[in-house]
Amino acid sequence: MAPVKKGIIERLNSGEVVIGDGGFVFALEKRGYVKAGPSQHPHALHREFLRSGSNVMQTFTFYASDDKLENRGQNLRITGAQINEAACDLAREVASEGDAMVAGGVCQTPSYLSCKSETDVKAIFKKQLDVFMKKNVDFLIAEYFEHVEEAVWAVEVLKTSGKPVAASMCIGPEGDMHGVSPGDCAVRLVKAGAQIVGVNCHFDPMTCVKAVKMMKEGVEKARLKAHYMVQPLAYHTPDCNCQGFIDLPEFPFALEPRILTRWDMHEYARESYKAGIRFIGGCCGFEPYHIRAIAEELAPERGIVAPASEKHGMWGAGLEMHTKPWVRARARRDYWENIAPASGRPKCPSMSTPEGWGVTKGHADLLQHKEATSSQEMKHVLEMQKKSKSST
Amino acid sequence: MAPVKKGIIERLNSGEVVIGDGGFVFALEKRGYVKAGPSQHPHALHREFLRSGSNVMQTFTFYASDDKLENRGQNLRITGAQINEAACDLAREVASEGDAMVAGGVCQTPSYLSCKSETDVKAIFKKQLDVFMKKNVDFLIAEYFEHVEEAVWAVEVLKTSGKPVAASMCIGPEGDMHGVSPGDCAVRLVKAGAQIVGVNCHFDPMTCVKAVKMMKEGVEKARLKAHYMVQPLAYHTPDCNCQGFIDLPEFPFALEPRILTRWDMHEYARESYKAGIRFIGGCCGFEPYHIRAIAEELAPERGIVAPASEKHGMWGAGLEMHTKPWVRARARRDYWENIAPASGRPKCPSMSTPEGWGVTKGHADLLQHKEATSSQEMKHVLEMQKKSKSST
Amino acid sequence: MAPVKKGIIERLNSGEVVIGDGGFVFALEKRGYVKAGPSQHPHALHREFLRSGSNVMQTFTFYASDDKLENRGQNLRITGAQINEAACDLAREVASEGDAMVAGGVCQTPSYLSCKSETDVKAIFKKQLDVFMKKNVDFLIAEYFEHVEEAVWAVEVLKTSGKPVAASMCIGPEGDMHGVSPGDCAVRLVKAGAQIVGVNCHFDPMTCVKAVKMMKEGVEKARLKAHYMVQPLAYHTPDCNCQGFIDLPEFPFALEPRILTRWDMHEYARESYKAGIRFIGGCCGFEPYHIRAIAEELAPERGIVAPASEKHGMWGAGLEMHTKPWVRARARRDYWENIAPASGRPKCPSMSTPEGWGVTKGHADLLQHKEATSSQEMKHVLEMQKKSKSST
Amino acid sequence: MAPVKKGIIERLNSGEVVIGDGGFVFALEKRGYVKAGPSQHPHALHREFLRSGSNVMQTFTFYASDDKLENRGQNLRITGAQINEAACDLAREVASEGDAMVAGGVCQTPSYLSCKSETDVKAIFKKQLDVFMKKNVDFLIAEYFEHVEEAVWAVEVLKTSGKPVAASMCIGPEGDMHGVSPGDCAVRLVKAGAQIVGVNCHFDPMTCVKAVKMMKEGVEKARLKAHYMVQPLAYHTPDCNCQGFIDLPEFPFALEPRILTRWDMHEYARESYKAGIRFIGGCCGFEPYHIRAIAEELAPERGIVAPASEKHGMWGAGLEMHTKPWVRARARRDYWENIAPASGRPKCPSMSTPEGWGVTKGHADLLQHKEATSSQEMKHVLEMQKKSKSST
Repeated sequence: MAPVKKGIIERLNSGEVVIGDGGFVFALEKRGYVKAGPSQHPHALHREFLRSGSNVMQTFTFYASDDKLENRGQNLRITGAQINEAACDLAREVASEGDAMVAGGVCQTPSYLSCKSETDVKAIFKKQLDVFMKKNVDFLIAEYFEHVEEAVWAVEVLKTSGKPVAASMCIGPEGDMHGVSPGDCAVRLVKAGAQIVGVNCHFDPMTCVKAVKMMKEGVEKARLKAHYMVQPLAYHTPDCNCQGFIDLPEFPFALEPRILTRWDMHEYARESYKAGIRFIGGCCGFEPYHIRAIAEELAPERGIVAPASEKHGMWGAGLEMHTKPWVRARARRDYWENIAPASGRPKCPSMSTPEGWGVTKGHADLLQHKEATSSQEMKHVLEMQKKSKSST
Repeated sequence: MAPVKKGIIERLNSGEVVIGDGGFVFALEKRGYVKAGPSQHPHALHREFLRSGSNVMQTFTFYASDDKLENRGQNLRITGAQINEAACDLAREVASEGDAMVAGGVCQTPSYLSCKSETDVKAIFKKQLDVFMKKNVDFLIAEYFEHVEEAVWAVEVLKTSGKPVAASMCIGPEGDMHGVSPGDCAVRLVKAGAQIVGVNCHFDPMTCVKAVKMMKEGVEKARLKAHYMVQPLAYHTPDCNCQGFIDLPEFPFALEPRILTRWDMHEYARESYKAGIRFIGGCCGFEPYHIRAIAEELAPERGIVAPASEKHGMWGAGLEMHTKPWVRARARRDYWENIAPASGRPKCPSMSTPEGWGVTKGHADLLQHKEATSSQEMKHVLEMQKKSKSST
Repeated sequence: MAPVKKGIIERLNSGEVVIGDGGFVFALEKRGYVKAGPSQHPHALHREFLRSGSNVMQTFTFYASDDKLENRGQNLRITGAQINEAACDLAREVASEGDAMVAGGVCQTPSYLSCKSETDVKAIFKKQLDVFMKKNVDFLIAEYFEHVEEAVWAVEVLKTSGKPVAASMCIGPEGDMHGVSPGDCAVRLVKAGAQIVGVNCHFDPMTCVKAVKMMKEGVEKARLKAHYMVQPLAYHTPDCNCQGFIDLPEFPFALEPRILTRWDMHEYARESYKAGIRFIGGCCGFEPYHIRAIAEELAPERGIVAPASEKHGMWGAGLEMHTKPWVRARARRDYWENIAPASGRPKCPSMSTPEGWGVTKGHADLLQHKEATSSQEMKHVLEMQKKSKSST
Repeated sequence: MAPVKKGIIERLNSGEVVIGDGGFVFALEKRGYVKAGPSQHPHALHREFLRSGSNVMQTFTFYASDDKLENRGQNLRITGAQINEAACDLAREVASEGDAMVAGGVCQTPSYLSCKSETDVKAIFKKQLDVFMKKNVDFLIAEYFEHVEEAVWAVEVLKTSGKPVAASMCIGPEGDMHGVSPGDCAVRLVKAGAQIVGVNCHFDPMTCVKAVKMMKEGVEKARLKAHYMVQPLAYHTPDCNCQGFIDLPEFPFALEPRILTRWDMHEYARESYKAGIRFIGGCCGFEPYHIRAIAEELAPERGIVAPASEKHGMWGAGLEMHTKPWVRARARRDYWENIAPASGRPKCPSMSTPEGWGVTKGHADLLQHKEATSSQEMKHVLEMQKKSKSST
């Protein structure tokens, strides 16, 4: 049994920086593991994030609501509850090895996009919450919401537990899919009971920090109080529209050239800190070394060095031993801080045109889809796409 | 005890495609682990490569010769032999779980670059070989040699074991650091006793395949026989000079935008196969999903699907279930085959100017360096660099 | 004596599209001629623009106010009035050869930036206006103003002449240097007496069209009436801040990679037309073939083909005769409409970081400067620049 | 009557640098003039080049052989001879205003590509030569040849005149279209009687200089003597294959982003000079300011300043007077020498894939084509193109 740790709110109230973890789906997929389900594989990844400095182990329950699992066409012999319980146990086991809390998360539902009622949608969140309560997670996150209305419903459900609640939307500075500004979203979430608000996924770190700044301004203008969190992509996305990286032509299997370096992460960590954000983590694309870079940038403020930093020289110091003197010359901060790394892809552009037909919740094109795309549907889709492009 | 498996030469003689693994140093560093030493961490990575289709588990003994370890400034309480024995055990344990062989590897030595004698250099290889024989690896690889002379010495030592010997140089189409062409290198290695020859590391896949083609032409012109191997970087390096990616300004901590997609790997696997190469793997930058892509591209020829492919739809088929129809429209081969992915970095170039002062073995600038760079030395190095640039 | 032509307002009121010309300074500099002064050289360029479809010959009097000429350190034996008279004669001579009007232009003054009084600044405009009246130009343009206040003063002076007055500011969607929005700028200019309002210079075509749209919205919201004009750069400037291309590191001698193709101009002409702009021309970077492209795009609406188009096949039709069939295959609209032309510069980025210290009118750094930069001043400037960059 | 000037050979023998002019077709097309024919328009351009430092006025007779004119589908009422005579008069008139010689040029013929006999092809050159002799040009250039065989025929014809003969091929380092190396081409041309050899068009300056260096090595190895010339494109073409810029997808109407800056020209001039080339000029894409940059770079060696440089500050010195201090800070050589200019086109790549089906002289696809492409032919061509791409 691990000793009683400080809770998330206690930490944030005392001015601590809490470092989050990175997204599991993208990282595990690159390791050759399936996208969801109870297995030992997240184990190693939880531990790598912990060693890299994460104080939060999010249960690997992303999109593991029953309606989403059904939606994915899986003919399941195990229930969502079973998956989620196993995920909680894994996260707890690793968290107990270090200074980390376990967070249980819920996210947006296909039911909402298909215009199901508030009661229906809340029932889904409640089912997931039951597991988190049974497993006694340390706090709760309602994350990855494109519509503030659904995020508020989630917060209202999670709030009933008495656990601390964080709420994080996958929006950028343009706001939610109905055009509600980040500031207004934040105000509604705080009023619903979220103690921590912020954004995650969909945009690159600097864009996300900008959106959280707008949230903070909104909350302060409304004379409310909150803590702030940010868990962005580890991909550069200057070319996204309001719907984020999913609409980029490279999503999800050609995002490599957009991956942030560890030096980009230093900048992101510093910028977040300056903006007053104290729960700083990552989402899709984050590998443990990205989290380590955040921990290293904020080591002076936190007075903590992550285990994984023990033999990692800051700012390339390890290169001081390199055989070639011109590589040794890279063992300094201003070299890496100022590098503009080449892509090695001279036939590729630096920005893309996002797709996306400007549709959202309730549109027929987005109704729940339980079967794979048929060849006739594919033909139809390609035609619509052509039309959408020529009218741009 | 696993059943007796077919050996590497037996496989290649029968026309099988043997899939190698990826490099460990870069992959483990991103997971937050130290760069070398006996630990449990390579375990998970070996297993991920195995699941992704690798038939070869290389012992994680890269640069683990005693002179290199000393060179790295480590005050070791354990010997190189102990490290290497532990590495062999780990590789064997995972290999026995599937259809994989264990390969013991030696690579170029600081002693050679510092002009030590043939006897001295060979003694280093012999010490490593003793471990591999004690642990009974399945075959041996002399890899990562910049000078064919040293590679020949390594092959001569390894050959004494009676095990199959593969020899792989880290050169491109311009040949070794003394200007010996790939074709001539290959001929000398085959004559020294290597049954498999090829290149690894330092260049991107297409460049490496080109170099191996030149090796094959040389060997055939000399009326010799050999099998061919290639284990390139997973980074695009069109801008390298003959010394490879180490001289790129992005090495080693800002290579992210150069990472190959899985689709680039399909192309690489096909091109290697067409060129007659049958031992196809990877080096620095390879993650398990890159190896899986090789296995998927060559699945028709091999008649084998890797475990990690079981739930990975070929050519993005998994997207057929995506909510957004324009993302579903990406669930097809010609979409991913033709994508030119953006870097998301509009302020970065697509190619860099390599550094490197055109010096190699024996040059004072490259003598063994047991201590870290002093600030005076750094100043000197930066001055030389400035001079080198202005004279370009 | 040429027959009496329709005036600018008469044309615009009847719905005609009036095509402007391009900037002279940049075009003549590339031909190796000095930047200002009475000479025969603008003659050829006026004629090229006329043949390409221009309906307006702007007198080459840009920045030829006495205070600017003095500012340029010129020890002049001829007066600004003499220069301006000669420029009017040249423009008139060519205009009389075709369907073109002569426009006399005034632009922002160093006196304003140095905080001289309204009376002083207006006196400068009046002096230039006297020449235009003597030479009886067809209409007047107050162009290239960064501050709406000064533009209003110019309009008030020009208005006294009874000639039609157009007012064009060098601002983008962010508005003037004091933060006045494009819409508010336009309202103030119309109220001051301008019959045509718009923007010129400083930004690329699409950015300028966007700014003029905002002007139009402002004017319509204020229930005023005006015609609209746009005369942008022929350089792509997606990376500019509010101060425009002057702050780009490439200004003014490395702008080549940003030059628009003729196909970009087709898009610009169409977009302008759709936005309701009817006086469409160009500024720095425009060559006659760019103007011709505008005329060609709008030929269906205008029912006029420019002389220079007589042997210029639309959309690359001239390539139908090319020897190589793959070049013949480019003789079609959709080829050129969709081309994303490569820069041939793989070591260059696609976007820059603008300089600029966020200062404007009245700031000591911008006071009038009658002497060239001394080496001490250069040192000071480079230090300030370094500071400005590190604080970003 | 102008005073007798030094001839080209006399100049080169005495070690003088002779500066050529730029191409006329591309420059005049951008000014809105037709592509060929007797007119006043080249007049202004000749004069601009002269003022910028050119010592050679090439008669604007490019591709003005009768077979080419016929090929272009022109229903001519004037003969090739008439065109060529008028062109000679224009060049002479301007040359006599300064220190310039008139050069008459012939180039490759459609007849050769269509496999006409040596006699037929030579007759075409002879017809053009007759005009040049009648008009008494100062020297002759056989330029823009892709096949050394035809270039040799041209030299043999021109040689009969007794005038100095220069021979320039449009090839790069890979040699002519039949694979003859630059060195071998040069040897054959010198043996045929050319006193000056080199390359023009098709590739960017640095590539052309490289090819001329190979010519020089070949000539010297054969113990022959010659002078060297280079007249490259003003477009960056790092991505060309052996056939040059015509196969680039941007040819000829989207080459803008590839245009060299004046600073690129300084580098080119210096590199040419270092390589021992003494007749240095330009071809397609060159504007007068590009020629001026060559003259400015070599002013110390030549002791001459071109008229157009009189008010053009070297290395941006004119910016010393700019209002903004950060623009004044650009008034220095190392700023412009090191600039890597952005394209302003983040959705465009930096390199293209050249088209071209690997066919040359004699191939059915390249037979003379007197009519424009029919829609059926276009369909056929597009199909062949698709096939060609998918087999890459």
